[in-house]
Amino acid sequence: MSISTCDLVLRNGTVIDPGLSPSPQAIDIGIEKGRISALAQTGNLPLLGSRVIDAAGLYVFPGLIDPHVHITNRVAGNMRGGFGLTSLAAIHGGTTTFFDFTTPHQPNELLSAIDRQLQNADGAVFSDFCLHAVLPAMELDDLWQIEQAIKRGFPSFKAFMLPSRGRSKVDDRLLFAALEACRLYGGLMGVHAENGRLVSHFSRKLLKEGKNGLRYFAASRPNICEAEAIQRALYVARTAGAPIYVYHVTSAEGAQAVRHARQQGLPVYGETCPHYLLFTDGVYSEERGFLFNRVPPIRSQRDQDALWEALADGTFSCVGTDDVATTLTHKRQPPPGPDFTDFPGGMAQVETRLALLHSEGVAKGRISLNRLVYLLTAGPARIFGLYPRKGTIAVGSDADLVLFDPNQEKTITSGELHDGTDYTVYEGWKVKGWPVMSLLRGQVIIDRGKLVNNAGQGQCCPRKIDPEIFKGPAA
Amino acid sequence: MSISTCDLVLRNGTVIDPGLSPSPQAIDIGIEKGRISALAQTGNLPLLGSRVIDAAGLYVFPGLIDPHVHITNRVAGNMRGGFGLTSLAAIHGGTTTFFDFTTPHQPNELLSAIDRQLQNADGAVFSDFCLHAVLPAMELDDLWQIEQAIKRGFPSFKAFMLPSRGRSKVDDRLLFAALEACRLYGGLMGVHAENGRLVSHFSRKLLKEGKNGLRYFAASRPNICEAEAIQRALYVARTAGAPIYVYHVTSAEGAQAVRHARQQGLPVYGETCPHYLLFTDGVYSEERGFLFNRVPPIRSQRDQDALWEALADGTFSCVGTDDVATTLTHKRQPPPGPDFTDFPGGMAQVETRLALLHSEGVAKGRISLNRLVYLLTAGPARIFGLYPRKGTIAVGSDADLVLFDPNQEKTITSGELHDGTDYTVYEGWKVKGWPVMSLLRGQVIIDRGKLVNNAGQGQCCPRKIDPEIFKGPAA
Amino acid sequence: MSISTCDLVLRNGTVIDPGLSPSPQAIDIGIEKGRISALAQTGNLPLLGSRVIDAAGLYVFPGLIDPHVHITNRVAGNMRGGFGLTSLAAIHGGTTTFFDFTTPHQPNELLSAIDRQLQNADGAVFSDFCLHAVLPAMELDDLWQIEQAIKRGFPSFKAFMLPSRGRSKVDDRLLFAALEACRLYGGLMGVHAENGRLVSHFSRKLLKEGKNGLRYFAASRPNICEAEAIQRALYVARTAGAPIYVYHVTSAEGAQAVRHARQQGLPVYGETCPHYLLFTDGVYSEERGFLFNRVPPIRSQRDQDALWEALADGTFSCVGTDDVATTLTHKRQPPPGPDFTDFPGGMAQVETRLALLHSEGVAKGRISLNRLVYLLTAGPARIFGLYPRKGTIAVGSDADLVLFDPNQEKTITSGELHDGTDYTVYEGWKVKGWPVMSLLRGQVIIDRGKLVNNAGQGQCCPRKIDPEIFKGPAA
Amino acid sequence: MSISTCDLVLRNGTVIDPGLSPSPQAIDIGIEKGRISALAQTGNLPLLGSRVIDAAGLYVFPGLIDPHVHITNRVAGNMRGGFGLTSLAAIHGGTTTFFDFTTPHQPNELLSAIDRQLQNADGAVFSDFCLHAVLPAMELDDLWQIEQAIKRGFPSFKAFMLPSRGRSKVDDRLLFAALEACRLYGGLMGVHAENGRLVSHFSRKLLKEGKNGLRYFAASRPNICEAEAIQRALYVARTAGAPIYVYHVTSAEGAQAVRHARQQGLPVYGETCPHYLLFTDGVYSEERGFLFNRVPPIRSQRDQDALWEALADGTFSCVGTDDVATTLTHKRQPPPGPDFTDFPGGMAQVETRLALLHSEGVAKGRISLNRLVYLLTAGPARIFGLYPRKGTIAVGSDADLVLFDPNQEKTITSGELHDGTDYTVYEGWKVKGWPVMSLLRGQVIIDRGKLVNNAGQGQCCPRKIDPEIFKGPAA
Repeated sequence: MSISTCDLVLRNGTVIDPGLSPSPQAIDIGIEKGRISALAQTGNLPLLGSRVIDAAGLYVFPGLIDPHVHITNRVAGNMRGGFGLTSLAAIHGGTTTFFDFTTPHQPNELLSAIDRQLQNADGAVFSDFCLHAVLPAMELDDLWQIEQAIKRGFPSFKAFMLPSRGRSKVDDRLLFAALEACRLYGGLMGVHAENGRLVSHFSRKLLKEGKNGLRYFAASRPNICEAEAIQRALYVARTAGAPIYVYHVTSAEGAQAVRHARQQGLPVYGETCPHYLLFTDGVYSEERGFLFNRVPPIRSQRDQDALWEALADGTFSCVGTDDVATTLTHKRQPPPGPDFTDFPGGMAQVETRLALLHSEGVAKGRISLNRLVYLLTAGPARIFGLYPRKGTIAVGSDADLVLFDPNQEKTITSGELHDGTDYTVYEGWKVKGWPVMSLLRGQVIIDRGKLVNNAGQGQCCPRKIDPEIFKGPAA
Repeated sequence: MSISTCDLVLRNGTVIDPGLSPSPQAIDIGIEKGRISALAQTGNLPLLGSRVIDAAGLYVFPGLIDPHVHITNRVAGNMRGGFGLTSLAAIHGGTTTFFDFTTPHQPNELLSAIDRQLQNADGAVFSDFCLHAVLPAMELDDLWQIEQAIKRGFPSFKAFMLPSRGRSKVDDRLLFAALEACRLYGGLMGVHAENGRLVSHFSRKLLKEGKNGLRYFAASRPNICEAEAIQRALYVARTAGAPIYVYHVTSAEGAQAVRHARQQGLPVYGETCPHYLLFTDGVYSEERGFLFNRVPPIRSQRDQDALWEALADGTFSCVGTDDVATTLTHKRQPPPGPDFTDFPGGMAQVETRLALLHSEGVAKGRISLNRLVYLLTAGPARIFGLYPRKGTIAVGSDADLVLFDPNQEKTITSGELHDGTDYTVYEGWKVKGWPVMSLLRGQVIIDRGKLVNNAGQGQCCPRKIDPEIFKGPAA
Repeated sequence: MSISTCDLVLRNGTVIDPGLSPSPQAIDIGIEKGRISALAQTGNLPLLGSRVIDAAGLYVFPGLIDPHVHITNRVAGNMRGGFGLTSLAAIHGGTTTFFDFTTPHQPNELLSAIDRQLQNADGAVFSDFCLHAVLPAMELDDLWQIEQAIKRGFPSFKAFMLPSRGRSKVDDRLLFAALEACRLYGGLMGVHAENGRLVSHFSRKLLKEGKNGLRYFAASRPNICEAEAIQRALYVARTAGAPIYVYHVTSAEGAQAVRHARQQGLPVYGETCPHYLLFTDGVYSEERGFLFNRVPPIRSQRDQDALWEALADGTFSCVGTDDVATTLTHKRQPPPGPDFTDFPGGMAQVETRLALLHSEGVAKGRISLNRLVYLLTAGPARIFGLYPRKGTIAVGSDADLVLFDPNQEKTITSGELHDGTDYTVYEGWKVKGWPVMSLLRGQVIIDRGKLVNNAGQGQCCPRKIDPEIFKGPAA
Repeated sequence: MSISTCDLVLRNGTVIDPGLSPSPQAIDIGIEKGRISALAQTGNLPLLGSRVIDAAGLYVFPGLIDPHVHITNRVAGNMRGGFGLTSLAAIHGGTTTFFDFTTPHQPNELLSAIDRQLQNADGAVFSDFCLHAVLPAMELDDLWQIEQAIKRGFPSFKAFMLPSRGRSKVDDRLLFAALEACRLYGGLMGVHAENGRLVSHFSRKLLKEGKNGLRYFAASRPNICEAEAIQRALYVARTAGAPIYVYHVTSAEGAQAVRHARQQGLPVYGETCPHYLLFTDGVYSEERGFLFNRVPPIRSQRDQDALWEALADGTFSCVGTDDVATTLTHKRQPPPGPDFTDFPGGMAQVETRLALLHSEGVAKGRISLNRLVYLLTAGPARIFGLYPRKGTIAVGSDADLVLFDPNQEKTITSGELHDGTDYTVYEGWKVKGWPVMSLLRGQVIIDRGKLVNNAGQGQCCPRKIDPEIFKGPAA
């Protein structure tokens, strides 16, 4: 009798994958050639493996996906180093695939900006990754680039509805045209939804009243700035017949707009970020307020509550980190202009996402473990064309897995994180539960919190949006 | 026994004033010093009058109000003449009060543009009139002008949400700021709601496909251009806590947005125009298509039906004409640029409004006589601060009255109209029912269709918006 | 020169009639042959009258209408006396027309019950009145009575959705059939909306738990009992294509059901009563609790607030009193059965309605004076087919008028009321503002609070429902 | 090296299980001790099995569940035989678990009726089954039976909102009380939703007009009869805080009520049946109309379309057959009374459900294969407490599997079916695709359409409702 054995078998773990089963399951996982090749009841039919890992007492999740990360050169000095450091932080935190964004400067650079960023990623990358193509300001004649990007496996985009550092504003004209192209060719447009003209109104009014400085930051971009833009984007998308993804929703009104559209059966998908869930705008009055500068701003307790509710009730589909790695020196440099919006923005948090949402969300009863795992795995995987290759523990899927020890207690401190920065906004936060092992396509990369495979062979994943995503709220 | 007699008594007419009574009433009207001083049942208590007019067989309506007229210099050669001709047409058609618009060129000209237009109106004007103050592009520092305009009795405004000939675009920033000022000081902002960026998208796309010329005019500004802008304006107004008036709604979606807001109790008021009710976009393919060039464009039969329904079910509050007097020569001059939007726009129709809406609306069962009279009288009077001085037949109100002969048949022809132009888009239309007498503040101006008082003593009416208008849909 | 003079002229009053004008008006009123024959600006054209009343300093309202009164024999010993006493109280309180209900005992008694009640009313009645025809349990073969009642001028009905003392339950079968007949012949069905089966559930459950007595009265018929029945009735009416009137809405959910239906354009009309607006269910725990026994029960503060809001925002169209005159002796008699629903119900309050709602509603900012006057005059007049004969101050209307002194202060006490009972639930309440004069069809009945015309010539008013009432929320 | 082999391995099939993956998957299935013990990619890691079945070219679905079957004694002469015949038809058609109903006659028989039906099922049953406990008319004192039934593993109930043959009416009182008990103890109430009083109205009206006979059957119970009852049941359930299941929804309005409730996040679950999806009310005018007698009636094309839409868009969660086996002789016997509702009702169709819905639904583009499989497997399994033991192909689940040949063409004819009856309403229908093999807990029962295991060891499955089902629309 000759039978083949698996390359690797993960035994005795407790599998949490809401797509697989509503309840935790004792299942052994067989892995071969980087994919899950077999699933078998623990203790019944022992899968044979060249290597066997005992996951007793641990949760096994599908490898996490972060749909919203910005690779920077600020810490490592260049983008290549940025990919290395951020992916190292990601894989330590259980995130086996993240999405970065391109930076086209000219109308005709949509495709070349993808190439440029792929070149930036040609060093050691410790997790898999994908790229959202940022939409430059362009004319109808340039729209063919959207079709090409989709055909080349980059079917997700981002439009900044107001000018943002290095990215030009996508006005309603281009937004509509690009959405039409997305409908036609199978793309998914996402938006940074803020109304720049309203931001300008509130900012100028405050400055006129002598109210400058970070403590007025949230007031300078009140909820309507975001909510109006979200409503407009949803309406434009609806008319164009295209699905739409809303990055970093921060306001109760924004969440309600997404909920309402989904209740009408529209293909609308929303995301929020950890800082909107874990802080309130009170931080802008603290001394360390400058660390939290990021648009849209962190808002009130009422908004925070509404965001948790939108995660729990199915309104939102993802939690992205909007991770931006930077240093204290960089954050402290004086703002270039007189305006409270000019502080350098962003914070690194891809590594702490899972543990914090578990401790602050699941352990505090704001969200079920099942739902959290969905938001970090199948949610983004379905929307962005990675499912079922990633985002679930199914036979045939990539063997991206994270083992989570629900009992490990830890105090978060910058020195123990791997993003290369010299601070964390979560300094001193206590969590219970931490990811202890990460597998990427069958390779153990992190084991008991240590990097055990430094090959850095993370790949860019080609994608195709599932037609279901176009029909209605399918994730 | 000494008793005073009225200056004028109107006897035996059938009064139609839905605010007064749901059914036609046989009431005699006593007039003294330009105002209605007494109402008495016909045949019971004979009111005494120095002059008595017998209105037997005629309907008596409150003098009509047209909230949307543009005085031009195109026919008469100067604005003063424009006021004369258009007011002459108005009073012949039963309209005793119309609203014109100012033309500020600079941020600081909101008030001076009012003064300028008042000077333009210092010749013979045959009906009363009011001015909506058009909002120039301006900064926060200029907003005091809004407060001043309101205090001076000009509490209604118009914001062009896209650039329009001679008027600059009011962006969301200024719209919000101006709405806040309106809430604070008691003003009512109105909007020309079109999304210029979307118009640009559709126009360019057509031109790119080689589709130029008037036949593509409607396609160059499809419904979403208007509907998106209306939704945005309603949302901004709601957040600013201010009421809003939407000029010339043309699309089913726009009507629905207004209806939905009103159902939620928001102070939103809508208007449409005769050309959207009486034509469809097929006219743009006709030879005479250039006569109908006007933004927003005339739309489909489905939209026309939706507009009639919105008039009938209480969604809209007014029918304005958007009257622009011009000549065939002027209309025929070659467009300045390559674009189908460059034909000179507008049509004169203040004189035919009542007769056409009566024949096409009431006689064809699309709307009740009561509702039509409301839309032409109390509707605009309530919204713009003229009520109950104008817009109703009540003791104390201005004695603005129109006598309508429901049996007079007429074929509309340019030569018999009084607007000074040399064509009408309604040439050859047959109507049954025509206004035969108009009284302005107690003076008979038109009698049996003829001008009998050429003093031209129409006045500009000072106004104050009723606080009820701020609370919810109060008209 | 010969002119006629009026029989009576009311001078210098401040007319409050929202149908006439949104603001108070200084108008003199000429009356001839029982009707308003002329209206004239105060001080301008003096109307001549055989008799002149000076109303300086007083409000002049249209005579009030109470759509919900139950004449009883409990105080006077017979129904005829009941009509006398209750109409005396009504006219003292400014109510010039009230609606009583018939009491058919058999399926074929719909018409004869009308006749019977008319006979009961053939003595001195001091105000005008109308009859709602109560629907007996009946079969399809009996429905012709509905058509006959409408033709005889009794076009409004009442169906008890659960059995009520002396009235049999109208089940969904009969309700639908009767609504169809109403649609066909022009009738308006009203409902006492409670789900008797749910009442039974909650009552039995309480009794089972040993919770008996009035303090559990409200709990024995919680909001859902009413709200479910209202929803069902509205749905049945909608399918039958008929308008519907909901008597005595008491719950927030019931009000919301009415609001929602009206927002959808359905012809639904709602009423609430003073006791639901002025007390909460705390009264059932007071010693005097037995005075407040009436179904549906008085509810929580949240419900009370919702009812005021529904009055103010246009959801409800009427305030009826559900007046039932009885004596303390009668109220105190031991309940016949073991159940807390068995106390004799009802309270007399037709006389105090206006003053209390003015002091507790208008003076406390819960409702505008205009809206209150509408709810007590034009609202019920429009719905039940009395308008514009009653419910407004217009030329040709019945000269039913009430003069209200807004400055007269009064402490309500049973001894000064005219309903013949020996207590009032409002004993000791202080009000500011009291009706001082009532005119019925041109006759002064009450002057300075005293009966000055004891002829008692109140009439039953024939009616026809306005077709507008069938189309949508027209009142 | 010693490893165990599976009892049975299913190789090379195409697995369709929407809970497992959105796309068909080539997966081998290992089965041990009646459960799925392993899943492995086809061709990669060969699972070892004592027996191996080659499913190449076939779809593999989870064993189907039919939530709505009525076992009768009409064909076999006794209930035991009824269980045998209907389960034989079920397992031939791919249904491995069906739900039958109890028949309590007295208030205190809820539990004993379960026992009685279990005794009826103690012969050969070829599929697994469950029992819904029918609610007898009862008092509060009898409600403890609900708690007991839930504790004994029978947590789903059925309430007849109108009297039905052998089952007494559950009025609103009992419905509310039972729903409260369900909320408290974890039960799920289902309703046969028709308003008996409205049915009575329409029936009597038709009879009165001389319209008798089956052709008037649908008209005798128009949509409102069902829709009103559904709305009422949903409202009562909402107030009681309990989930609710609606059996056999037949009308567009009923579907809309379910959709609306689910959009508001309420735990409402709906079912429809094949005959409502495959016929219209035209059948009642056909000679064979008597075969289709079943309440609620089959309705119009508009309703049929709405039901398909509700299946496709997620409004409904299940398709039950309402299977009733009977013979032509029985169907033809003269109705006992004068009424068109008195024909003996029901039709056998548990065997044809899958093939017909596949050919008429999936092949005609009305519904996706994924969604159909969900409605027949995970949908009912989740709602009624069988998931994930049944309703999905997951490690640890019961090895209930059906192999479907999508290319097998067949003309349905009564002689080839296994329900023991002598006709089928689908006689002559052509289908493409037929279930060819059924496994029950690892045993092959049907192979190539033939019974290969006649042990008949189907079991009654104990159940517990998932708490998620209580929170919102979780299936």
